[in-house]
Amino acid sequence: MKTNVKTSPLMREKGLSGRGRLLVKCPDRPGIVAAISKFLADHGANIIESSQYSSDPEGGTFFIRTEFDCPNLADKQAGMENDFKELAHTFVMDYQFTYAEDRKRTAIFASKEPHCLLELLWEWQSGDLPTDIVLVISNHEEARGMVEALGIPFYYTPANKDIRKQVEQEQIELLKEHNIDLIVLARYMQILTPEFVSTFPNQIINIHHSFLPAFVGARPYERAYDRGVKLIGATSHYVTNDLDEGPIIEQDIERVNHRNHVVDLKKIGRSIERRVLARAVKWHLEDRVIVHENKTIVFH
Amino acid sequence: MKTNVKTSPLMREKGLSGRGRLLVKCPDRPGIVAAISKFLADHGANIIESSQYSSDPEGGTFFIRTEFDCPNLADKQAGMENDFKELAHTFVMDYQFTYAEDRKRTAIFASKEPHCLLELLWEWQSGDLPTDIVLVISNHEEARGMVEALGIPFYYTPANKDIRKQVEQEQIELLKEHNIDLIVLARYMQILTPEFVSTFPNQIINIHHSFLPAFVGARPYERAYDRGVKLIGATSHYVTNDLDEGPIIEQDIERVNHRNHVVDLKKIGRSIERRVLARAVKWHLEDRVIVHENKTIVFH
Amino acid sequence: MKTNVKTSPLMREKGLSGRGRLLVKCPDRPGIVAAISKFLADHGANIIESSQYSSDPEGGTFFIRTEFDCPNLADKQAGMENDFKELAHTFVMDYQFTYAEDRKRTAIFASKEPHCLLELLWEWQSGDLPTDIVLVISNHEEARGMVEALGIPFYYTPANKDIRKQVEQEQIELLKEHNIDLIVLARYMQILTPEFVSTFPNQIINIHHSFLPAFVGARPYERAYDRGVKLIGATSHYVTNDLDEGPIIEQDIERVNHRNHVVDLKKIGRSIERRVLARAVKWHLEDRVIVHENKTIVFH
Amino acid sequence: MKTNVKTSPLMREKGLSGRGRLLVKCPDRPGIVAAISKFLADHGANIIESSQYSSDPEGGTFFIRTEFDCPNLADKQAGMENDFKELAHTFVMDYQFTYAEDRKRTAIFASKEPHCLLELLWEWQSGDLPTDIVLVISNHEEARGMVEALGIPFYYTPANKDIRKQVEQEQIELLKEHNIDLIVLARYMQILTPEFVSTFPNQIINIHHSFLPAFVGARPYERAYDRGVKLIGATSHYVTNDLDEGPIIEQDIERVNHRNHVVDLKKIGRSIERRVLARAVKWHLEDRVIVHENKTIVFH
Repeated sequence: MKTNVKTSPLMREKGLSGRGRLLVKCPDRPGIVAAISKFLADHGANIIESSQYSSDPEGGTFFIRTEFDCPNLADKQAGMENDFKELAHTFVMDYQFTYAEDRKRTAIFASKEPHCLLELLWEWQSGDLPTDIVLVISNHEEARGMVEALGIPFYYTPANKDIRKQVEQEQIELLKEHNIDLIVLARYMQILTPEFVSTFPNQIINIHHSFLPAFVGARPYERAYDRGVKLIGATSHYVTNDLDEGPIIEQDIERVNHRNHVVDLKKIGRSIERRVLARAVKWHLEDRVIVHENKTIVFH
Repeated sequence: MKTNVKTSPLMREKGLSGRGRLLVKCPDRPGIVAAISKFLADHGANIIESSQYSSDPEGGTFFIRTEFDCPNLADKQAGMENDFKELAHTFVMDYQFTYAEDRKRTAIFASKEPHCLLELLWEWQSGDLPTDIVLVISNHEEARGMVEALGIPFYYTPANKDIRKQVEQEQIELLKEHNIDLIVLARYMQILTPEFVSTFPNQIINIHHSFLPAFVGARPYERAYDRGVKLIGATSHYVTNDLDEGPIIEQDIERVNHRNHVVDLKKIGRSIERRVLARAVKWHLEDRVIVHENKTIVFH
Repeated sequence: MKTNVKTSPLMREKGLSGRGRLLVKCPDRPGIVAAISKFLADHGANIIESSQYSSDPEGGTFFIRTEFDCPNLADKQAGMENDFKELAHTFVMDYQFTYAEDRKRTAIFASKEPHCLLELLWEWQSGDLPTDIVLVISNHEEARGMVEALGIPFYYTPANKDIRKQVEQEQIELLKEHNIDLIVLARYMQILTPEFVSTFPNQIINIHHSFLPAFVGARPYERAYDRGVKLIGATSHYVTNDLDEGPIIEQDIERVNHRNHVVDLKKIGRSIERRVLARAVKWHLEDRVIVHENKTIVFH
Repeated sequence: MKTNVKTSPLMREKGLSGRGRLLVKCPDRPGIVAAISKFLADHGANIIESSQYSSDPEGGTFFIRTEFDCPNLADKQAGMENDFKELAHTFVMDYQFTYAEDRKRTAIFASKEPHCLLELLWEWQSGDLPTDIVLVISNHEEARGMVEALGIPFYYTPANKDIRKQVEQEQIELLKEHNIDLIVLARYMQILTPEFVSTFPNQIINIHHSFLPAFVGARPYERAYDRGVKLIGATSHYVTNDLDEGPIIEQDIERVNHRNHVVDLKKIGRSIERRVLARAVKWHLEDRVIVHENKTIVFH
């Protein structure tokens, strides 16, 4: 099943074979950090980086992301995960172990405008996106050439309202068949159905071409121009069934002025969209993002 | 009437005695720049800085701001303005001559939070706001001490819905009596009536504590917190009768993260509000802002 | 001795009575976080915020800053510090406990330009600088009025090369007498002798008016203008005996262009200097800065 | 000679057939703007955008960039240039007419790291760089594939000190043969001889991977890491015979912290280098940059 995995050569050199990450969400109370760090020390793991956040020290929710190195991690990880269950039970933890060697499998959805797709491919080629880009799906043929030139399979799926359900069904099968962990909507200009979205909870990242919550919906650059704003932005967020209302991962802006017509805003915007999406995807791939009540905790 | 003018000592040294500015808005057509620059040259004025903008070279609106030096300007200005009428008629110009020596007369409105008021006073003291701050009006007494310490009259006017019309009437009289050119709402937390606003068209500058059009209305920091945005901002705009919908002069943002609670957003926001308002006021005072169809052209 | 302490009223309300911080630097090895977090849990302290950094997971130096809440902390802190000695010995720790209630005692040094002094006073008045500003020392009289208006003692000390040693001796006595913890050079334009600097190691914060290491030394704005840079900056750093070479705490920049003459760069620069110095001082006061080999680890 | 010109398809649509630009540098005195704008009006040209700058209104140097539309420009331009000579003589002007239709011919020099080359190719493909990329020269073979895939000739020229003069001679011949107007050093890691540089005055744009004048010379990221700076930057400048001392066109920065090792600074830096170089090249191609005494006036 993993035969056509495309791995950036730069990533291979990184020697992440003993690197693990533990993400935890649980009710805040004294002793959590002590218990987790003792657990890791007892299992021979050395904490490399650890970040925590409590929504409210008195009775809030506690979040921690711990990155650790552990010799012979591949041999130990099943035992470690099994041993952790007791501790997790004690503290009522919602938790997840991930391993840098198990690279996430990503599918990119694109439409006509290629800049966000290209940025992701470029970052991936440079070794800056620790993932396998398994396939690209688009409702336009334009990008086929450059995608296939990188050895990545390209699937054309037509898009219009009448056939949405059927097309999505085929897409879901394709994604399942390839064990996709992450779907990136790289300026994919189709609305996804609730069925599709609920199949991949917190696994679909979108880039919206405005500084949300300003200009929710269609034609944000045209509306930014009409309003006469002095800054334009872009927002990367997880997709939920409320359009443009999902948890925000990253935003950025650039300055514009009265000379910039809509076409200029779009050009400037492309550059913002590219970097905002690339950052959000990278943080997700490094397990730096925890979703909590329609917001994100990003440990970077 | 101008007896209690407070002039920053630094500004006096600047030697702006021969400095004039011409702002023009008219239908675009060939020859406008040639006509204006010939006019100024013929009147012995040397162009120091000139900026122009055309909304559309084919049949749009043309805007130009020209700053010039002219020896003995005080003696010449009446004649120059008279001579300009013919040219203005030919090109159907909406125009305005201003003179750096005729410092604009500013009133600041404040409420409880003093940071924007303080920033303006501080910039003025440093010689960076070319204006006379003639008076401060507030519906709270807190700032009286520091305002009066600078020799600026402080007026307390109570505020609540029931007495709004009457209070505004008194305020308008005060402003008229002191020949106020510019009203700055430095986090003045009262809504102005349409009567008040229409008395001072494009002469009232407000600071809104969000990146408009996101979070129009009340409690923007609370709502930014709830939405989980990664950037917060502030917007300075001219006041119109559509709340928070007036022409935007300046905006800026700062990065925030999940650790920042509402109280932190407010603190960070104060720093953004201070500099956004100070810039907008400064550009207005230097005649750098032209309002056109609910947008601003800012020549800076 | 603490009779004339000036405490910002806003700070009093914060209820930091049970808040402590532990800063640790030690050789990296497994088990440090586990040991510290167990220690705190065993002493009834709840970790509010914790950040760590390892210069190199294999044999580097490990740094951790832990902020905790602990009921009845005042009663417990002596015992807690005593108990910690054994753990500190085991891990060869360089460490420090601080308590939010023990506000640091700050002296500000200023010269002619008041903007950085004013910014600190303003932030302190707003409750954003958790410190007691005990005194201001200046080699100019200009700021006396506004400093004394806030109830802060103002000391004039003349400055020139011939009397430097004698003046510094008087300053040191004054600072010792008032138990000063932090000295902020708010655009104090005198060079300190090695004797003075060594008396207050990592306790003197300076603001340099350039983006170091560009434009080390005198007249940075003039030199930035001559070089034609497109950005200017400011740098806040701890003072060492190598001029402008001390550990950098914070830097920031703003965009400039060919129109900006030296006087404009200075104006724009003032705004950068103000915020860079205020941030650095705030982080120091919150024990967020650890100095290591002429660099800083800033946990914010 | 222009047979293998590669034109981005997007650029063709822009309809710049009647667009001209006039750049002027001359001693400042009254009447220059009037004379130029009258000249253009008399020749049927409509000013689209005009920017000016005077180094000193009293006896300094005056700079103006005027962009204009003119019907049948191709037929008129020889006559217009001839007519302008008299005016140019009167005002002692150093001047240049350029025409948007005469796209500049660009050669890109690259070495091993492809990110700056890729960014330029990407911007060019998107229609955002108004130029013909005529050839790419590199002392490494890595980029050949992707360059030739775009239909752009790729020349490998070996590089080491011993053969520098001979290699440069071949390069100069190649560049002359292809009528190259602009040479972009896209992280080309070879030093050019004075002979090469003087052959292309103000026609060679380099990207230096630091915020100049900080970290002039080799290994800037390593030195930035050692100094512990909190921001890193990149600088695009014209190449002169003083290494890293040529006129700066554009600079930008990003924030870094103690966690960022040299490898991280390089990654972050790549993103800054890409956008700084792309902006500088674009401004040069649009004739927005005037060099004056080792500084640039950039009209954007």
